Amino acid sequence: MNPQLGIMTWGDIAPDPLTGQLPSPSGRLTHVLELARTAESVGLDIVGVGEGHGAHRVNQDPFLLLSALSRVTERIRLSAAASVLTTADPVRIAEQLSLLSLLSNGRVDLVAGRGALPQDQDLFAVPSHLREEIFEERLDQLLDVLRPGPSDLLGDFRDHARDVELPATGRDPRDLVWAASSGSPRSVLRAAGHGLGVMLNVMEGEWRNLLPYVKAYREALRGFGDRTSARVGLAVPALVIPDDAAADPWRAAVELAHPYFSAGTRTYGAASPEDPTWTLDEFAAQCAPTGSLVVGGVSEVVEKLAVLRHELGLERILLRVDINGLPHDTAIQTVRLLGEQVLPQLREQHMPGEDPPRLHG
Amino acid sequence: MNPQLGIMTWGDIAPDPLTGQLPSPSGRLTHVLELARTAESVGLDIVGVGEGHGAHRVNQDPFLLLSALSRVTERIRLSAAASVLTTADPVRIAEQLSLLSLLSNGRVDLVAGRGALPQDQDLFAVPSHLREEIFEERLDQLLDVLRPGPSDLLGDFRDHARDVELPATGRDPRDLVWAASSGSPRSVLRAAGHGLGVMLNVMEGEWRNLLPYVKAYREALRGFGDRTSARVGLAVPALVIPDDAAADPWRAAVELAHPYFSAGTRTYGAASPEDPTWTLDEFAAQCAPTGSLVVGGVSEVVEKLAVLRHELGLERILLRVDINGLPHDTAIQTVRLLGEQVLPQLREQHMPGEDPPRLHG
Repeated sequence: MNPQLGIMTWGDIAPDPLTGQLPSPSGRLTHVLELARTAESVGLDIVGVGEGHGAHRVNQDPFLLLSALSRVTERIRLSAAASVLTTADPVRIAEQLSLLSLLSNGRVDLVAGRGALPQDQDLFAVPSHLREEIFEERLDQLLDVLRPGPSDLLGDFRDHARDVELPATGRDPRDLVWAASSGSPRSVLRAAGHGLGVMLNVMEGEWRNLLPYVKAYREALRGFGDRTSARVGLAVPALVIPDDAAADPWRAAVELAHPYFSAGTRTYGAASPEDPTWTLDEFAAQCAPTGSLVVGGVSEVVEKLAVLRHELGLERILLRVDINGLPHDTAIQTVRLLGEQVLPQLREQHMPGEDPPRLHG
Repeated sequence: MNPQLGIMTWGDIAPDPLTGQLPSPSGRLTHVLELARTAESVGLDIVGVGEGHGAHRVNQDPFLLLSALSRVTERIRLSAAASVLTTADPVRIAEQLSLLSLLSNGRVDLVAGRGALPQDQDLFAVPSHLREEIFEERLDQLLDVLRPGPSDLLGDFRDHARDVELPATGRDPRDLVWAASSGSPRSVLRAAGHGLGVMLNVMEGEWRNLLPYVKAYREALRGFGDRTSARVGLAVPALVIPDDAAADPWRAAVELAHPYFSAGTRTYGAASPEDPTWTLDEFAAQCAPTGSLVVGGVSEVVEKLAVLRHELGLERILLRVDINGLPHDTAIQTVRLLGEQVLPQLREQHMPGEDPPRLHG
């Protein structure tokens, strides 16, 4: 099966490190809406919006943006990727998810995340030593409430409530919810335990490092007797330029991306002072065939995605295209190339009977 | 000044008491969106969406609906009327309000409500004896967070958070927030204390009963030295038919509305077993010139609204048009008549220099 190919944004408002230009909040919102509409117009399958808080964000509530997107798109899937469950009320999240599923004709899903940023945990007062427990309880409760009929919420981290019920969406909770993983045994086993798809969120390192987690996930699902629900997705930063943009398009893309990607891909959006900066050579290694980042001319990107799809068995690929103050036109170019060139070539490569693609270089 | 005239919905999914027909959740969402688009197309000023929870609702998150509406309308104001602050995190509400203000070009505001339904208080575990205190603290915190710059949240009913900041909307918090009142001295004095507009939510009784509250509100504002921010709004159920629909259009409108309005205007949406049912005569008294409900032919409705506007000094009128399973076409007819006939006649009556309108009958 062809994987879903799409884009994602974290909605951060960051200055362009080259020019110092900082978009306004409404300017960034306009950008985000335009990225999504462009993604649909060029035939991509999905758009994801992450969650973040603070003054330099326009994604405090991913569902609010996805609801707006549900009216200006018709076909593309909409994903809250990720929605931070640790800091939220599972009833509110289930309500938003159900309502938006109805509003969008069933196009929406959610990637349940634990939340990585300490300042967001502080904003909603999540004690760090209880983060895993809170997340697990809330994920259980979210899935309970999303099942048809009334549920009782009787956990430790939320006041009890009985007979909680939502308008019926007609959708299986496992179709509505994925589990986020930044690559830990616990997170992939948790996804398997719930029969959920797992969305790997990767910002650096060699993609081969993900193989043990994917293997553990699939084995755990088999161990639970679940042979049907395995779904693996990957979210990763990306920048694509035309093959004819330079003599060495891969090198040109790496040089174009470096000032942006080196300053903020590992933090949540804008760079933080503790964030190590990659030299150009270090960054190039992240973009090489062995690295996780999807940066290059169209041909290299097709090859990288074909390998990732094959080796990790991906059902969904979300490419984060508006990294850390990157000019909007450059992000739009990536979206256009993904839909107009990468997607058709990727589907062609994946015709039944063909050999699996090989690693480049 | 002419008041804003608009419609509101509570998004409840109720069976038509005459036919037993129950709309689907997605059918009701389609209705709500169509009511709002129609309101804009006929020139009304505002559309409000209330908040409610449970399986027979599509308004669990008013902001989610308003966000969708921000894309399918261009000019009409959008109000979360009311958003239940007692059961919500003020940071989340402030985030949604700010984000939606940016998304809608500043068209959005919120009516902060305490929430009337015990089952919703149970769902989010609000102890009834603390309801007023919780609401007051959250209203303070909401207004704090909406002011430019970072805020510290240090109350009793939410974990403390420091340096909370939102993307700048460029709007005064008092432009973004109204205070709901179902007619109590405490609620109008609270609104005055914060310099907020007060939105009176009325479902029965004589409108004259509201006069002392409006007077107390205005006097309190003057007492606080605030001469500029008085704003009084009224939300009330309504049904309008054409003047030529019957020999006695008022009587015809009352008879048309009775099966729907008598079963659920006083509860939040769908009727509850404890809800007393009005006989036709009792209901007609609610719709008479002395009653609060806005039911009749165009002429009677113009007259009632002119009186209410004048006597209460209204800046905003929100008419709840889709009561308790009322057929969608009947609600749409009300919206069309409000925009095409009632609004122009009301504005004409209100030309400077004219006498204030008199009570009918």
